[in-house]
Amino acid sequence: MTDKGTLGEFDLIAALLAPLADNEAAQLLRDDAAVYAPPAGYELVISTDALVADVHFPKDADAVLVANRLVACNISDLAAKGAKPVGCLLTLGVGPQWDSSFLRAFVAAFGAALKQSDMALWGGDTVRSAVPFVSLTVHGLVPKGQMLTRRGAQDGDDVYVTGTIGDGRLDLPTLGPAYAAPQPPMAFSAALVGLAHAALDVSDGLIADLDHLCRAGGGTIELEASAIPLSQNGRAHLAGGGALIDLLSGGDDLQIAFTAPQSAAEALVDAARAAQTALTRIGRFTKSQSTHQVMVVDESGAQMPLERRGFSHF
Amino acid sequence: MTDKGTLGEFDLIAALLAPLADNEAAQLLRDDAAVYAPPAGYELVISTDALVADVHFPKDADAVLVANRLVACNISDLAAKGAKPVGCLLTLGVGPQWDSSFLRAFVAAFGAALKQSDMALWGGDTVRSAVPFVSLTVHGLVPKGQMLTRRGAQDGDDVYVTGTIGDGRLDLPTLGPAYAAPQPPMAFSAALVGLAHAALDVSDGLIADLDHLCRAGGGTIELEASAIPLSQNGRAHLAGGGALIDLLSGGDDLQIAFTAPQSAAEALVDAARAAQTALTRIGRFTKSQSTHQVMVVDESGAQMPLERRGFSHF
Repeated sequence: MTDKGTLGEFDLIAALLAPLADNEAAQLLRDDAAVYAPPAGYELVISTDALVADVHFPKDADAVLVANRLVACNISDLAAKGAKPVGCLLTLGVGPQWDSSFLRAFVAAFGAALKQSDMALWGGDTVRSAVPFVSLTVHGLVPKGQMLTRRGAQDGDDVYVTGTIGDGRLDLPTLGPAYAAPQPPMAFSAALVGLAHAALDVSDGLIADLDHLCRAGGGTIELEASAIPLSQNGRAHLAGGGALIDLLSGGDDLQIAFTAPQSAAEALVDAARAAQTALTRIGRFTKSQSTHQVMVVDESGAQMPLERRGFSHF
Repeated sequence: MTDKGTLGEFDLIAALLAPLADNEAAQLLRDDAAVYAPPAGYELVISTDALVADVHFPKDADAVLVANRLVACNISDLAAKGAKPVGCLLTLGVGPQWDSSFLRAFVAAFGAALKQSDMALWGGDTVRSAVPFVSLTVHGLVPKGQMLTRRGAQDGDDVYVTGTIGDGRLDLPTLGPAYAAPQPPMAFSAALVGLAHAALDVSDGLIADLDHLCRAGGGTIELEASAIPLSQNGRAHLAGGGALIDLLSGGDDLQIAFTAPQSAAEALVDAARAAQTALTRIGRFTKSQSTHQVMVVDESGAQMPLERRGFSHF
């Protein structure tokens, strides 16, 4: 932490964060840098995501929501790569409205989220900002050469998704749990290494994200509308006259979508059961010269019109 | 890059940044994450620094200044650890006033600074923000177990500093080169590994930073006022009636201060010459039970009063 301030709040932050950095790499943030090497046979997967007030969370959002979404959005990227979180650097852009009580609550929730994901705090920076923001850079471990990417889907692959789809979108207006405290399928993700051909996290909307897999893999995905896993909330949305596309394009699911050969099906089902993660086959990937996007089909096999595909976080 | 926008500017940023990420770890930012392992015998030093408009740079600062200061502040932390920059993740908080022309200029200057410091772009995030900010997380390589820290100063160590002191402060009002485009002593820093006992970068003001070395090392530094290396600007400041303390407490030098045993003196002078880096012995570290801060002495050996010690970036 480059906490150089004479302001009480910054001393407070340093004092609160230091105990979270009780690890060999960070040495309680006594220096301006962390030091780390992955164990033999592993490499680091590195990713970063920032959340800004009034863009990614309401300006008056409570500290627990900001901390939980920050950690979840970041470890979701690692999960989709088959990587296990190991260490992170936190940048806090402290706005005028973030008083001591907010900061204490933030650090407590952030610490709990780190503990749950077994990730160490390695360092960071604390700065003043007229608009509050938080940014995390996360490091995860994968067996060397095994990181999952968006590329690599093979002709005939099954397409799967973890959890349920549309709940982040449905919980946004009320800041309900799927939005306020998303739970990426961390326990399951390592099992994808060696089984999945291509993977990514569902953050922009299922259709938009599967479109990425189609473009990167040079093919098309036929998504079966009736197979999409929905929560009780999601089913109630449809029963109340809501459209399926709201759920398929809503974003913020923080689940993993991936493709795998049919030969991997049994191992995937076993791994999902062991990790207590819901796993659903939702379609098929087919190589194609001409079409590099998702089509959604109903139970009769007819293609459904898609008035939108995803959600822009900007 | 999680560039999900339909906005032209975000497509522009992605298009501009992708060529900077033409390296194995980042693969042109095609995925949401980079993958990297340090070579055998090395470990990663990891650090992060953010700059916010109206706090760390003027709101109307030009893009080249923002890019140069962002890279310099970050690699300065690596230099002080004896680490060689290898890869970084960039977070861009794009404010309303950062138009396409600003962004093009920023990416061009950022790319040039990466090239100069031999550092790859591994990834990042681009977000909208009412107040512009930039954040960089940098990774450097050091031989395993050899990272320099603030701790470790030994009784009788010489205290050195690279470059000249006070120029960042003097160039701040006019946004002159020492402020707008600082040049941390990257070519010299690796030579400190195995020679220096303790090191840090001078960013808060020479006195305040040497105070850190005193606290971490459990001792005191007697700093010789007449030995402080000054530029022509610095000497003119004194000749015009300016106080030495302005230079010693001004901050933003981005030089390296370190302690080393007298036995290392010759090797250090040779390494500095080879790296074309100015190196000056400015005092001595002495272990102490009671005093853990710097004292400045004049040529008669009398202790000078210090009305301030450093500069808060907050």
